[in-house]
Amino acid sequence: MKKLEEYVRSIPDFPEPGIIFRDVTSVLQDADGLHLAIDEMQACLDGLDVDVIVGTESRGFIFGMPIAYNLHKPFVLVRKKGKLPCETISRSYDLEYGQATIEMHKDSIKPGQKVAVIDDLIATGGTIEAAIKMIEELGGVVVKVVFLMELAGLKGREKLKDYDVASVICYDGK
Amino acid sequence: MKKLEEYVRSIPDFPEPGIIFRDVTSVLQDADGLHLAIDEMQACLDGLDVDVIVGTESRGFIFGMPIAYNLHKPFVLVRKKGKLPCETISRSYDLEYGQATIEMHKDSIKPGQKVAVIDDLIATGGTIEAAIKMIEELGGVVVKVVFLMELAGLKGREKLKDYDVASVICYDGK
Repeated sequence: MKKLEEYVRSIPDFPEPGIIFRDVTSVLQDADGLHLAIDEMQACLDGLDVDVIVGTESRGFIFGMPIAYNLHKPFVLVRKKGKLPCETISRSYDLEYGQATIEMHKDSIKPGQKVAVIDDLIATGGTIEAAIKMIEELGGVVVKVVFLMELAGLKGREKLKDYDVASVICYDGK
Repeated sequence: MKKLEEYVRSIPDFPEPGIIFRDVTSVLQDADGLHLAIDEMQACLDGLDVDVIVGTESRGFIFGMPIAYNLHKPFVLVRKKGKLPCETISRSYDLEYGQATIEMHKDSIKPGQKVAVIDDLIATGGTIEAAIKMIEELGGVVVKVVFLMELAGLKGREKLKDYDVASVICYDGK
């Protein structure tokens, strides 16, 4: 059987020289790859008591929603600024150039709820760190963070060292 | 049992006066609402021979992915300009103010593949019309277009009159 890593297309020098871009669209474009990705990510939650699945815009939606459906849990969106229609809280975080701001609905997490955060990739970890701070501001307890892929060379795990983090595929580089 | 419509939060005068915004996050934030939404959308594909599920950024990802997983089909992303790393085709379409451009990977659909397009909402239909044109440019055959919600007053169906279109919840207004 083909391993999950083999479905990931690697694109050298994208978006800039020296970066190897790990493309998840090649995983999703294969029915077996898609199934394997969801199943292996979901397996990281085995045995855990989880109330809510949270996914960040937009690739967190891709991997978070099937897991929420399969586990019969609510799915909460972390969106870019200005996209959520009701009352929100927000966090800004640093990008390579400039800043980004993400938001959550104030009523999306209830105090004490146990939350699993799902995303496609951990690079520097800035987005997920900001998402976790919002979840905690709403009173949620982050019990697991699951990524399909990890770029270990960027040391995103250091930002998340207080949390239980799992990645299905780990690349040494950046 | 609560009906799907009852999970949708309606927000008057958002994003501007006179518009009633239909918020899907309230559906997703309830495990039963989320399940019902996916199941009723997926039921629109019953009996159809489908090779590929296509979803548009980013709420099409939310509803398309669980259906692709459940039916064991590939999932193909229609993304905003500049987000896909490999060779793409693109289409521009008119917004109320200005234009938007969406893209697909050139290798994402094979000629003759039967495609179901999934999105959360049909308003004027511009995004989905552009997505369909790209799918057809790649040789795909659109056999079904499924929306969670339809704003019938905006007449998006007229743009899609040559296609088999289904919506789970239909609102008369805009």
